[in-house]
Parts: sequence; structure tokens; C-alpha cells
Amino acid sequence: MSSYGVYCFNMKIVIIGAGYMGSALAWPLKDNGHEVHLVGTHLDEEIIHACEKTGIHPKLKRPLPNGVQVFSFSRIDKALKDAEIIVSGVSSFGVHWISEVLRPRVRPGQKILSVTKGLDITMDGMVRHFPQVLTESLSAEVRKDVSIAAIGGPCIAGELAGRRQTCVVFGSEDLSVADFLKEIFQTNYYHIWTTRDVYSLEVAVALKNSYALGVGIAYGVLEKQGGLDQAGASMHNLASALFAEGTWEIAQFLKRTGGNPEFAYTLPGVGDLYVTTMGGRSVRMGRLLGAGYSFQKALDLMKGETLEAVEIIRGMARWMAALDRKGELSLTDFPLMRALVRTVLEGKALELDIERWFSGDK
Amino acid sequence: MSSYGVYCFNMKIVIIGAGYMGSALAWPLKDNGHEVHLVGTHLDEEIIHACEKTGIHPKLKRPLPNGVQVFSFSRIDKALKDAEIIVSGVSSFGVHWISEVLRPRVRPGQKILSVTKGLDITMDGMVRHFPQVLTESLSAEVRKDVSIAAIGGPCIAGELAGRRQTCVVFGSEDLSVADFLKEIFQTNYYHIWTTRDVYSLEVAVALKNSYALGVGIAYGVLEKQGGLDQAGASMHNLASALFAEGTWEIAQFLKRTGGNPEFAYTLPGVGDLYVTTMGGRSVRMGRLLGAGYSFQKALDLMKGETLEAVEIIRGMARWMAALDRKGELSLTDFPLMRALVRTVLEGKALELDIERWFSGDK
Repeated sequence: MSSYGVYCFNMKIVIIGAGYMGSALAWPLKDNGHEVHLVGTHLDEEIIHACEKTGIHPKLKRPLPNGVQVFSFSRIDKALKDAEIIVSGVSSFGVHWISEVLRPRVRPGQKILSVTKGLDITMDGMVRHFPQVLTESLSAEVRKDVSIAAIGGPCIAGELAGRRQTCVVFGSEDLSVADFLKEIFQTNYYHIWTTRDVYSLEVAVALKNSYALGVGIAYGVLEKQGGLDQAGASMHNLASALFAEGTWEIAQFLKRTGGNPEFAYTLPGVGDLYVTTMGGRSVRMGRLLGAGYSFQKALDLMKGETLEAVEIIRGMARWMAALDRKGELSLTDFPLMRALVRTVLEGKALELDIERWFSGDK
Repeated sequence: MSSYGVYCFNMKIVIIGAGYMGSALAWPLKDNGHEVHLVGTHLDEEIIHACEKTGIHPKLKRPLPNGVQVFSFSRIDKALKDAEIIVSGVSSFGVHWISEVLRPRVRPGQKILSVTKGLDITMDGMVRHFPQVLTESLSAEVRKDVSIAAIGGPCIAGELAGRRQTCVVFGSEDLSVADFLKEIFQTNYYHIWTTRDVYSLEVAVALKNSYALGVGIAYGVLEKQGGLDQAGASMHNLASALFAEGTWEIAQFLKRTGGNPEFAYTLPGVGDLYVTTMGGRSVRMGRLLGAGYSFQKALDLMKGETLEAVEIIRGMARWMAALDRKGELSLTDFPLMRALVRTVLEGKALELDIERWFSGDK
């Protein structure tokens, strides 16, 4: 165990997905002295190859911690042998894929920790979070002996890998599982709180992506108006109002769907929203939309990069449409999300409809 | 009325205090066609002189809107003649001064709108907001016929004067007064929500100053550690956690003192906290403390500039001490504010005590 770690019993942990977040978890785990296997998906072949050849993770731009073993996807069964904890480190686009991968491979007694952010919302407005999707994909027999947990909260992977102070939440319906995983992962730079309210945790961290896109709009509007004016005025007032309306809508969604609105105003809500506005693709898309580009044009400018924020907006559109059909949604409910739906999914010009903010069902 | 305004009945409004925020309100007011008198305090002589001579407000770096009449303090009685609305535009350091100024001058029927942010907390932990201080300073006879309201929410004055989109909350215990003032001030860039919960509004906007100082700490810690590391890692994870803990503590304070915690997660809470972290003196002080300077040294480096954030920390120290004496405060309550109190008021080295965050009385 390195000087960073705070616990010293040794576990075997397999991380599937060698992108930013999955890979970054290798740092606290190795600092705690665990055995860590990092398995690339079929999309990570180049990453795994580079790690094997140079020892340096090409996305995180750092040497992997000493002792991390890397595996290409073809060797997943070898990597998983005797694993006690499996980390699902795929993006939301890989959640159904990882369910397929894990279904035949999970063994009773294993614990699965999901870093994937997103919600699965059906046409009739049913909201499922990804740990739920994962759980339901397992056979009934395995399911009862496997524990699934999720991570949420503000964490830029490159900072975690740089051992910068980071605070997150681990959630599991069985709180003892979250507490157990906390002991495995926590270091003196990786601080972990636990909750059994996985639903509220997952909703907050999923929605924050689309609302970070919302905050980005302000800086696009600024560009459209020619940038700072002659007296140096920026567009922070609008950005702050977008931030607040986003937080408010996360709280409203939690209230309307049986979650706990307090998650909107702690790490998974405002914390994760704040970190997400510090950069990244969601904010960049927001800027382009704020500057007046159509969604299609903005997507072209971003070279068709996949955006989790857009998937969330798509899901929210389904949820709102389902409520609307039942007459349970007023025009003052979720006005910012409505604006995002109109612009992103319906190709309309952006209209913020500010006068409808901060109202709706309280 | 200009093309920005949305209402057209004409009022006479006197703004006392020609600093950033008081002066910036002249823009929406003139856009709505009102008569606006801007009166400098005794500290604003140079500003008033410059406005008279050049027509340009030297702090806001813009020509005042056409028709705004400026007055030095010696001419306040002339300025106030027949005023229907008085705006108190002084900083929190001027709140007792403005009470003295207004006491003999306020006339029944007038409305007073306060932009001053801050709390008056006594040694025994009594919390009073500034509209309350102002109200109590008036004679009983005048008090019953004068309505006092307050503004809160994310508003950088220079952006308001630049007619950038801005969203704020007007609060008055008599909601019809807040609604009336909304009609006077609102334009197509200055959006106003109203509330009768002046206490929660004022608490949220006051506390956000000290918690913005808290967020600044992260970037000071970054500097102390040599800035971005070789892989480009910043300190946004810590900044976000500080932001979330600050929001959480605002909500906790509201709960503990009979306010409404929802104010923490809308414009006056996260909105105002977000805008305040975008720059300014509170954040700069936080950076210096995070970089390892003592409060005294940091104050020297900032040339002894007065800081509203420090006054809030001083008030919170009194409140926490009063609760502590009654045995009503545990060590997990307000850990970030405790750290600020230790460093700012007791001259101790900064210790963030992260493991105690996000807990306390729920």
C-alpha cells in the first residue's frame, strides 16, 4: 500500500472499460494495495496496446500505477478469474453491451460497481437507472447473490489519476455493500460518502449532463453578441441563472418521480453540475446552440461525437410526453428541458423562455 | 420607454449609493421610462463628480443612461423630494449608516428596496437580515406605512448595466410590494421572481459570499501544488466538492434557523454562489488562503480591502458559538464554515476536514 492509501486488505478487482473513468479508478485501488486488472472493451484496443507497449495510458497521459495488469477484451475471462469486485467502466452507450458481457460471467458473491451515468426511459415514461438495467440483465439465480453499486459525484478522471482531492458518493440499495466498497476505494485524496438511495444518486448525476449543456448556452449567446462588450461585461448572470434553473429542474424531477430532492443540492447534483460546466463536450454543444447553430450543424462541427447529454434529453422528452398525455405536466414544468428538447430533438431555434423558469409544481 | 422596457407608468426613484449595484439599477429603470436620481454616499464623491463631468460612470465604465440625474450626498434632500421608491444601494458596511440617513427622511407611503447583502448576527446567535435592520431603525409611526423589500440572486452589476440577461428575486413580507416593484424594474433582460420569504432570500445571498471564498480555496491549493500537473490535471473536483458543501451548509443553516432550504438550490443559493465564484474579492481571498497564506498576510496582499465574506464568517462564528454553548452543535455541523472561522478569525493554518463534509444534522 502506498502512502496515499488508508486500508490494507487485499482484493482482486477487475475494471472493464479502459476509458477515462474506469482507468482512473486504478489509482486509488493500487494505492490501497489491491490487485487490479484493467480490461479494454472492443473499442479500447488501441488504449490497451499503448498501455502494454509504453506503460502510459494514452487518454490519461500518465503511466499506469505499478502493478496494474492490462487485458484486451479477448482475454476477459482470464482477467475475471477469481475477481471479487467488477467495475463497469463503460459509457452510457455501452450499458446494454456490458450487461450482455457480464450476464454469463458474473459469479455469486461478486460485487459490481458501475461508473456509467445515464437513465433508461421508456416511451411510457418509466425511468430505470443503469444499475437497475444491469441487475435485471442477470439471471434470477445469480442476481440474488450479486451486489450492484454505483458511483456518482464530481470527478474529472484526469484529476483522480493525478491524485487531486476528489469527493464522490457510492450508492447501493444494500448500504453495507456501499460501505464495504468505500473501504476498498477510499484514500486520502478519494473521499467517499455512501447512500442506499441509488435512484436519486443516478438521476442527479445523469441529468447534470444535459443541464451542463444548458449552462454552456450562455457563453454561446455571448459569442453571438460579439463577446465581452466595451466595458468587459460577460454573460455570467445568464450562466448562473441557467445553473440554478438546471438544479431546480433536477430537484423537481426527483420530487415528481419519488426521489429525494436533496440530491440536487449536494455532490451528485450541484457538485457534479459544477464540475461538468468546467469543460467538456456537453458544454461545447451548449455553446454552439447558444451561438445560434442548429443541433445538426453543431453536431457536424463536433464531428458527430456521441453525447450522453443528448441521450438524457431524449429520455426526458419521452418522460415529459408520457406525463403530458396523462395531463400531468404544465407549461411551467421543466421549461429549460423543454427548450433543450425543442432545439436538440426537434431542430428548432433555441428559445429559452426565461419567464417560465423557477416555477412549476413545487 | 426604450425598446427594452416592458412597462410604461412613470415613477420617481432615488438610488442612494453610486457604487456598482446601485448604479446598475439605473439601466432597467430608465429603460422603463422612470425618473431616476442617483445619490452618492460620502464615499462616492469622486464617482458623482466624474458622472457630472463626463457622463460616464467610472466604475461601470459606461455612460449613464440618458436622463439619470446624479447628486452628491450634500444634496440628498433635494434628490429625495417626492420620491416614491428609494433604493438602498450601499454595501453591507453601510447598512447602519443608511439606516441613520433614512430614519428622518422616509415618508409614509414610500417603498424601500435594499440591494445590500449581509446578516446581522448578535453574540447570542440572533440572526437579523438587513431589511429587518432597516425596518427596525424607522420610527414606529413611519414603519407601518413604509414597505421594505430586498433583491437577491446572481447579478454582476456590469452585466446588468450592459443589458445582459439577468435573473433575480425580489422579496418582501408583503408579496404585493415585491410584485409592484417587479413591475417597475423588469425589462426584457432583467427578469424578476418574487417571494414573501425575505429571511430565506437574505440568508442564502449573504452566506454565498463566504462559500464563494470557500470555492476559491481549491485554486489556491492548486497553485501551492505547482499548478496543472504534467498531464494537465486542475483542481475542479475539489472546487466542485467545496461548491456542493457550501450549498449544503446554506441549506442546513436555513433548516436550523426556520428558513426554507429550497432557497439554497435556486437563484439566491446556487445561482448567486455560481456567479460569485466567477471572480471577485471573495474568491481571491479564498485562493490566497488555499495557497497557504495566513489570513493576515492575504489581507495585506489584498491591500486591506473590505470583504463582506469575512463579516459573514464573523457572524457565523457567533451563531455557531451560541449554539455550541447550548450543546446544539455537533462537530459534523458546518465543517467548511468551521474551517473558514479557524483560518480567517483565529489565524490558524487552513485544514479542510473533508471527511466531515455532507453530514451533520439532516
